[in-house]
This record gives sequence, structure tokens and C-alpha cells, in this order.
Amino acid sequence: MKGNLYLIPTVLGSTIPSEVLPDSVFKVIKGLKHYIAEDIKSARRFLKRAGTSVPVDEIKFFELNKYTEKNDLAGFLTDANSGNDTGLLSEAGVPCVADPGSVIVSLAHNYGIRVVPLTGPSSIILALMASGLNGQSFAFHGYLPVKKNARNRMIKKLEKESAIKNQAQIFMETPYRNMQMTDSLIMVCLPNTNLCIACDITLESEFICTRTIYEWKKNKPDINKRPAIFIIQSGDKAPHGT
Amino acid sequence: MKGNLYLIPTVLGSTIPSEVLPDSVFKVIKGLKHYIAEDIKSARRFLKRAGTSVPVDEIKFFELNKYTEKNDLAGFLTDANSGNDTGLLSEAGVPCVADPGSVIVSLAHNYGIRVVPLTGPSSIILALMASGLNGQSFAFHGYLPVKKNARNRMIKKLEKESAIKNQAQIFMETPYRNMQMTDSLIMVCLPNTNLCIACDITLESEFICTRTIYEWKKNKPDINKRPAIFIIQSGDKAPHGT
Repeated sequence: MKGNLYLIPTVLGSTIPSEVLPDSVFKVIKGLKHYIAEDIKSARRFLKRAGTSVPVDEIKFFELNKYTEKNDLAGFLTDANSGNDTGLLSEAGVPCVADPGSVIVSLAHNYGIRVVPLTGPSSIILALMASGLNGQSFAFHGYLPVKKNARNRMIKKLEKESAIKNQAQIFMETPYRNMQMTDSLIMVCLPNTNLCIACDITLESEFICTRTIYEWKKNKPDINKRPAIFIIQSGDKAPHGT
Repeated sequence: MKGNLYLIPTVLGSTIPSEVLPDSVFKVIKGLKHYIAEDIKSARRFLKRAGTSVPVDEIKFFELNKYTEKNDLAGFLTDANSGNDTGLLSEAGVPCVADPGSVIVSLAHNYGIRVVPLTGPSSIILALMASGLNGQSFAFHGYLPVKKNARNRMIKKLEKESAIKNQAQIFMETPYRNMQMTDSLIMVCLPNTNLCIACDITLESEFICTRTIYEWKKNKPDINKRPAIFIIQSGDKAPHGT
């Protein structure tokens, strides 16, 4: 019998784990000894906060990030292949969405390892829910290009796509570039395009607001260095997609 | 002071609420007296299971579904406008994703009502996490056309889009048409296209599997009448998008 691969969500920022994670997550964590994580140090910190009952030095970690060699990946599932349940942890929120975890899940399917996704906070879905934009048709694009001209071209392209498909377009930015992103959006998009800015999701300082570009221009938000999700939707259709 | 609009997730099927919903959901539900829900009867049933401490006949409901008149919508937020917290409940999973809730959220933003999204199970995100397909670029399309020819054309279109953009394409089907959808996918898609079939998510009978069309053809899954999410991704790129 093979072990399961549990996809284990974590908190977004400094929230108390039980505020955003359900019982199933704590039950799985309680006895789990094998993990794949982006950063071992922060994974250890999270597991302590989430109440693992395994002494932290008995937990075995594999690190999955941009430094991981492709040839090492199969070895990460040796424990699951030999019957030990293994957890795949995200750095923030749910694993395998806007993070590199899916390469492991893909391998697990090849090996016939059962993959069990657990519920937790996804900043993308929480932002979309709270945006009032089209939750029946949407696309997520990760990070847009960093260079201004390329970023502006991409924003224009997404705005057009949104108008053609009546599809909400979701993307992210590294927090210290939020203001450049906001400036680009205000400059590039049509005045009646809807823009949702969602930052510090699930935190005390949570700010989620949907306005037209015309309105944001008059009242630019202060979101510098706060983790944010951006969603645009063309104003040529009703914002809620009906 | 206005009240908040809480976006309150529910369970997917017959799961015990605490298995998939965190404390923040139960805390909000405990004292809340104003709700907007797709179906009042099932909303009442869920609130009882989730441990509301308000007598059920003291709870005020507005029903939001395809029979709701557009002119009535603004009235649904009267209570929030006059200082009473209001909950927007989904029929299954998170509100405003693949359901009609976003029209209310859009109004709330216009009125300056704070919108607070709470964490819960989204079958779309859970399926994507567990698919091993591209969680860094994906699109959700809701339901595809019901008629066979139109459905097949749409599947072909999504498969092409997936190849061009290296984007996972997510969609749903009404459970009793699952086998027709599976037949269409097997007939229309290329043999090396990846297909994830995720059904009964978070339930005991959960089944999530990603295979190529070539493999599914040899071994057709029995998913008739089980709530399912389908994800396709062209095999012309690596399934995990790297």
C-alpha cells in the first residue's frame, strides 16, 4: 500500500491558523512525519503553530523551490511510494496554485499515489469572491512582466480579452512593486474598466475594493509592500457577468 | 456605520462542517441574523449544522437565484446599509465562484459596504491543486454548451488555447451528463492531452485522477451522477507548466 500525498494549505501572513484552516488540516498535520516544502525553516515554524505532535527534529523535509534539481524530484516521493503519508506544504495559502508544487502532484499521479487536497485560504479565490467581478468565467495569469512597457502591453491585452470573453482577469505583483502596477493599470486601462485591488487578505488590515479606473485615478490606494491580488474586468459588460 | 457583507462558504455534499470550514466561519454564523442565499431551505439546514445560536425563525433570508428580479437586488442590502451584518451563502462551496452571488458583492462595493470573504472549500481550486496541472496559469469556464456538437467545438477550442498559452482549462458539468462529457473529451482531444477528472471532492468517495486521453480511453471512469470538475491541459507542454 502506498501513502497519500496530502496538499496542506497554510496561513496568509500572521493569522491564527484555526481562523483559516479547518479540522482536517490539523488532523493530518498531527501525525505526519514527511513533508515537501518551499522553505524548511518557515515550514517548521508553521507546523509548530499548527500543533504537530511529532518532535520537529523527527520530521523529514524535502525542499522544493527554484534551486531544486529536476532529477531529485522523484526521490521526494520515495516515502509515499513505500507507504508513508507525505505532506506538500505551501509557503502561503494553498499548495500548487501560484507555486511550484504541481510538479510533485503530477509525479504522484504517475506513481499511482493518491492525492488529497485540503481546504485552506487561496488569496486568488478570496479576492475573486470579494471582487464582485465574474466568478463564472475567470483566468489567472500569475505575475505579469516586470518591465514597464511589457507590463503595459500585457495589461492592455488582458483588458481586451476580458471584453471579448466577459472574463475576469486575475494577476499578482511582488508587494514592493504594487504602486508601479497600480500606476500602469490607471494609465493603460479604459476609464470604465473595473479594477479590484485586494490586499492583506484574511489579515486585520484586509483591504478589498472594486472601482472603475476613473474612480481609482481620483483616489489612488496606498498598497505599497502589502501582498496584493489584482483583478480587471472590462466595463463594456456588466461587472458581475450577467 | 454600515454592516459588513460576509461571504460564507458551505460544505460540498455531506461533509461535517468543521472538516472543511475554519473557526472564522462559525464565529460569523453564530450571531448573524441576515442572509442572502440561493435556497432558503438548504441554507436553514446548513446554519443548523454549523451551529447558529440564533433561533431559525428569527433569521431573515433573501433568496438569490435565477428567479430573483433585478429590481429587488438593492433591497437585499438594506440591512447592511443600516448597520446590520449580512451573510451571503453559497449552495455549495464558496459564494460568488460559479454561482450568482457576485451581483450582490458588486452592489455592496457601490454602497461602500465592506465585503469580507471567508475561507472554505472551492471545488475548482481543490481540483486544480490536486490535478498536477498548471496552477500558475489557468482559466475557469463554468458549464460548457449542452448540445454535443457545440460542446465538442468548445472542448477543441479550449484544448488549443491550453496549448498556445500553456494554461490549464477548468470546467464543470451537471452530474447526470458526466459520462457524455467524458465521451466528448475522449473523442475530441488529442491522445497526449492531459485530463484531470475530480469528483466527490472532500467526500469519502473522493476521486481525483489525471491521465492522458490515451490512458482514459483504455480505462473509462465511472463518474455518473457524481459532482465533478474537469481540467484539460495540452500535452505539448509539460503538464506542470515548467
